[in-house]
Amino acid sequence: MKRAFDRVLLAHGSGGRLTRELIEDSIFPALENQFLKPLSDSAILPELPAGRPAMTTDAFVVDPPIFPGGNLGHLSICGTVNDLAVAGARPLWLTWALILEEGADAELINACLQGAREAASAAGISVVAGDTKVVPKGRGDGIYAVSAGLGVIPPGLQLSDDLIEEGDVIIASGPLGDHGATIMAARHGLESNDLQSDSAPVNHLTEALVGSGIDVHAMHDPTRGGVTAVCNEVAERSGKRIVLKESSIPVRPQVRAACELLGLDPLSLACEGRFLAWVAAKDATRSLEVLQGYESAQGAAVVGSVAARDVQQAPVVLETTIGGERPLDLLSGSELPRIC
Amino acid sequence: MKRAFDRVLLAHGSGGRLTRELIEDSIFPALENQFLKPLSDSAILPELPAGRPAMTTDAFVVDPPIFPGGNLGHLSICGTVNDLAVAGARPLWLTWALILEEGADAELINACLQGAREAASAAGISVVAGDTKVVPKGRGDGIYAVSAGLGVIPPGLQLSDDLIEEGDVIIASGPLGDHGATIMAARHGLESNDLQSDSAPVNHLTEALVGSGIDVHAMHDPTRGGVTAVCNEVAERSGKRIVLKESSIPVRPQVRAACELLGLDPLSLACEGRFLAWVAAKDATRSLEVLQGYESAQGAAVVGSVAARDVQQAPVVLETTIGGERPLDLLSGSELPRIC
Repeated sequence: MKRAFDRVLLAHGSGGRLTRELIEDSIFPALENQFLKPLSDSAILPELPAGRPAMTTDAFVVDPPIFPGGNLGHLSICGTVNDLAVAGARPLWLTWALILEEGADAELINACLQGAREAASAAGISVVAGDTKVVPKGRGDGIYAVSAGLGVIPPGLQLSDDLIEEGDVIIASGPLGDHGATIMAARHGLESNDLQSDSAPVNHLTEALVGSGIDVHAMHDPTRGGVTAVCNEVAERSGKRIVLKESSIPVRPQVRAACELLGLDPLSLACEGRFLAWVAAKDATRSLEVLQGYESAQGAAVVGSVAARDVQQAPVVLETTIGGERPLDLLSGSELPRIC
Repeated sequence: MKRAFDRVLLAHGSGGRLTRELIEDSIFPALENQFLKPLSDSAILPELPAGRPAMTTDAFVVDPPIFPGGNLGHLSICGTVNDLAVAGARPLWLTWALILEEGADAELINACLQGAREAASAAGISVVAGDTKVVPKGRGDGIYAVSAGLGVIPPGLQLSDDLIEEGDVIIASGPLGDHGATIMAARHGLESNDLQSDSAPVNHLTEALVGSGIDVHAMHDPTRGGVTAVCNEVAERSGKRIVLKESSIPVRPQVRAACELLGLDPLSLACEGRFLAWVAAKDATRSLEVLQGYESAQGAAVVGSVAARDVQQAPVVLETTIGGERPLDLLSGSELPRIC
């Protein structure tokens, strides 16, 4: 009789019989598709549609791995789908590698497999290749996952921070900071019924936006480092000044409350199912209309604009609700480890 | 003054200023290329050449991470290049994600970055996207790396275990078991001047073989589980019987000696710079000529052949030097964890 999988053993990662059982009994049922199934050295895929290919990868080590609104598996698929989506690419194929810790229980692994399955299904993509390794107890933390993805940018679509112009508006696809606040609250044992991660694929939203004839110049997803990090990078690459308007930035009350309690800035918190778009001012209203046509982007809002920048000026500023202006600097990063 | 990087801090993985410094001061100089440099959400690539795309991924957790003949960084690039190469694909673009442990010293990280650079250069590929995460001390083991790769199988090339025929010969591109023996010897504190990993990209060899008009039916790289695991998988997928001839299998004396000391079977040990090719018998000699034209494949040899299989027969057998026949079963896998 086959031994049931209830805890991860070192042998599950050694390429032998137990590795095969783990793959065939647990991983395949979650992710099965015609490309993954042959279980050979590489997945052989159909020729790509016309356009420029885009590739990306992300490692996920979030602590805790299961949290309100998602889990490490769900997050790891969304992260790579979203990095492709904001580059203007239609995500096509993903790879997914797991580093499991000896002794991790099946419940954790299966929850993450189920999460990956749901995210892949929501995004409309397939995981076509994978790998599983096991590290000894105390050399991992239950489960780490690394996803990589391939997408194609349709012919004619150009997105680049170089295309951002003075006067462009910045649109957020929904409330900000939910994922980061949820993880930090969970880590500090704070309970809240309505605080949950925004972990979700955004590719249907980005495709709708760029497919609607709107003059989109650039898109980015505010993950690690949040809106602050993304806006600083955009300011640096574009040479422009990013002006965010505090009163227009959608932050859920429960996220704001958690931030106040924990001393965090919602603008530095990771989102995992939101994106920012830099669009021509003339298309601001139309952009909101397109996004708000989707359940997941009901809270889309114009959160700022682009201005010229003098050398002395801070690259990113927040116009506060009390009428002041506060520079938003890149954090050194020590505050929020393992948020994704 | 910028703080010099001498140990990995948690903040190096948080997406803030220290993450940027790690990337710009250490990772870019090792891997720099025009696609990686923009450091955006995805790498935007030129359109692919004609043919079917192939994708693969591998996680690397080898212990120890630095070993005679290579390191985890070198290995992680070779592993993905080789999985593409044996599928008949020309490797084009790789992604590379690192999971670093807080407190890991710069020497280890830099050795692995240098290894990745050398392997990428030897294979002629670029690492176009990456990610770096840091886990707390005691939740990792210095460095783990996950590579994923995209290649293209040229039009007209068909490789598949389904194409393997009775009478085909099996060619090994060089001596077997070097990587596995080296890791196991290092882990047991056995020193040997001439025992070293075979970690190397094989794509130039596979391209030469399939490009020379030889009737190649399938290729595989014997990594985890070694020749035994690969041959069992091939036997299962092809429905044929694999007959290996012990006296023809190239195993270096120092590998054989380490195996005897440690109670290991060289045929179950991982190689990381070798491949097996199933070719039509008429092309056996020509295959060896092509491979032996390369320094790294001087030791290429015909190691076995393909026969019909009856239901009762073992799928993979070894004809021993003393004239007997020994079935080669897939290991449960518990003997050799973290070999790659």
